[in-house]
Amino acid sequence: MPELRKDPIVGRWVIISTERGKRPTDFPSVTKAKESKICPFCPSNENSTPPEIYAVRENGSKPNSPGWSIRVVPNKFPALRIEGDINREGEGIYDKMNGIGAHEVIIETPDHTKDLVDLDLSQIEKIIWAFRERVLDLKKDPRFKYILIFKNEGEAAGASLEHAHSQLIATPILPKRVIEELEGAKQYYNYKERCIFCDIIKQELHEKVRVIALNDLFVAIEPFASRFPFETWLMPRYHDSSFEYIKSEQIPHFAAIFKETLARLAKALNRPPYNVMFHTAPLDNRDSKEYHWHVEIIPKLTKVAGFEWGSGFYINPTIPEDAAKYLSEIKLD
Amino acid sequence: MPELRKDPIVGRWVIISTERGKRPTDFPSVTKAKESKICPFCPSNENSTPPEIYAVRENGSKPNSPGWSIRVVPNKFPALRIEGDINREGEGIYDKMNGIGAHEVIIETPDHTKDLVDLDLSQIEKIIWAFRERVLDLKKDPRFKYILIFKNEGEAAGASLEHAHSQLIATPILPKRVIEELEGAKQYYNYKERCIFCDIIKQELHEKVRVIALNDLFVAIEPFASRFPFETWLMPRYHDSSFEYIKSEQIPHFAAIFKETLARLAKALNRPPYNVMFHTAPLDNRDSKEYHWHVEIIPKLTKVAGFEWGSGFYINPTIPEDAAKYLSEIKLD
Repeated sequence: MPELRKDPIVGRWVIISTERGKRPTDFPSVTKAKESKICPFCPSNENSTPPEIYAVRENGSKPNSPGWSIRVVPNKFPALRIEGDINREGEGIYDKMNGIGAHEVIIETPDHTKDLVDLDLSQIEKIIWAFRERVLDLKKDPRFKYILIFKNEGEAAGASLEHAHSQLIATPILPKRVIEELEGAKQYYNYKERCIFCDIIKQELHEKVRVIALNDLFVAIEPFASRFPFETWLMPRYHDSSFEYIKSEQIPHFAAIFKETLARLAKALNRPPYNVMFHTAPLDNRDSKEYHWHVEIIPKLTKVAGFEWGSGFYINPTIPEDAAKYLSEIKLD
Repeated sequence: MPELRKDPIVGRWVIISTERGKRPTDFPSVTKAKESKICPFCPSNENSTPPEIYAVRENGSKPNSPGWSIRVVPNKFPALRIEGDINREGEGIYDKMNGIGAHEVIIETPDHTKDLVDLDLSQIEKIIWAFRERVLDLKKDPRFKYILIFKNEGEAAGASLEHAHSQLIATPILPKRVIEELEGAKQYYNYKERCIFCDIIKQELHEKVRVIALNDLFVAIEPFASRFPFETWLMPRYHDSSFEYIKSEQIPHFAAIFKETLARLAKALNRPPYNVMFHTAPLDNRDSKEYHWHVEIIPKLTKVAGFEWGSGFYINPTIPEDAAKYLSEIKLD
């Protein structure tokens, strides 16, 4: 059973993956790692993953067999375990609890050769729908407080398998990063009685110097205080706290701006490794006036080093307005 | 002039390095970077750096010429600039200020072939002394609120030059990470009327399952809630909030545990890339009963990915007690 441990100074929870139990020689940089030959996410290898939880199958094919266009399976090496009780306890001045949660993989396409950016709009819409369905289902479990949807593309961004996939992790406590955003948004709301994200969108659409893509319902910007070069946020122009209540008529607009943004980044930066994180309200916080769901995309171009780890500051060598200019001027095919 | 910009949601400051102005093709992963042939930190290349601020020269040699054993110079590409006023201002809902600060490089040895771990104890003592002297000098500038000493060893840990060196950055605002530690330590102190770090040390010395090195004045541990495999903290066993008041008779003990810890990590993990961060109280916070200086060492073995960026949680695949056992059982020559 993985263990959740709390740093007693800053209150940050850490997942200690007791079952993986990596020794020094288990790290690729210490000893060269072996490569697996069979892709567990390719059609016909369905038995290489745990049984599927959700799939899009239009041809009447059977579960855990080929014929799917999207497939969601439990992570074979989950960071958190679905079975058991949370069981909070102390150990002297330290606090810990069982690592309860859910960890799922969304296989985005049966085609091993394609990345997310290469998929048709209709396929990206199905992926968004799968995210929505999985969150709505996991929400029923009262042990979970938060669900994070994320994607690691490329080895430098932490991907261990190259076949296009996203992941989601449901956690029994609110993550630190989420608490910080909620508290910041709340402070602003208390002062202004307006959503800070709505105000950011208004200013960005007026100034137009950091916008890289726009449609009727969504906008993509380089944030004013970008931590990383070419960091990009996707935001709904309408106010809603929670991604999982996206309506079926909104999904095509979101899929379109998501694909366009990934295409601009891919062309400007030569298909960089990147991370995508969905930021949404905690599960019990439906209809928050203060919070506004959005998606952060971070191309992996620089290394996080001692100054960043020690200070929590970031040094960004690219001016966000310059990045926006490059990205918005890219000619897409 | 670099610009400090504040994220309006979470209040995180970011340094936008306006002068470097990196374009897409300036990132090594996008276009292969050229390697510089001449090491600016080697003796006889003193003119490749800005003029020295501090040096240890025992043979009467002249500044900015060979003959030094330690040399401190301004960073040629500083993240923050020493000249100018802070000049806080708004831009709609956003906040920014000039990027005022100091950014120095401590060249740890004239010998290009040696890493910090390879140096004699007497040389490491001189490096610690140089850190102390530079902080005490920069403290006189009332514009600075914090000074972070850090080291990036190896390209994967963010080092751009291989010649052994550390850096320090003085900032005009308290970094987020520092505020979090101060607030956590203060909460504990308010509740217990004891320093949380002193209590951690007491428990660790009693349990002995996470200690990897120990002498009369210092202890090295794998923290209970380690974010990363083989993350290691060095802590003074005596209470002091501020590194820069380390006494000359304490320095040999600190140098000894620093070298021993680096040697254990180097042998266990095949000389991994790593980051070192000195955590000390803010410059105006001398004699805090709540805060306790310490040093964090993070070997770079895993990649920070979407889950970590999105949640602020970390997944550590190595149990800290296992890491401590490996490291403490290493036989040093």
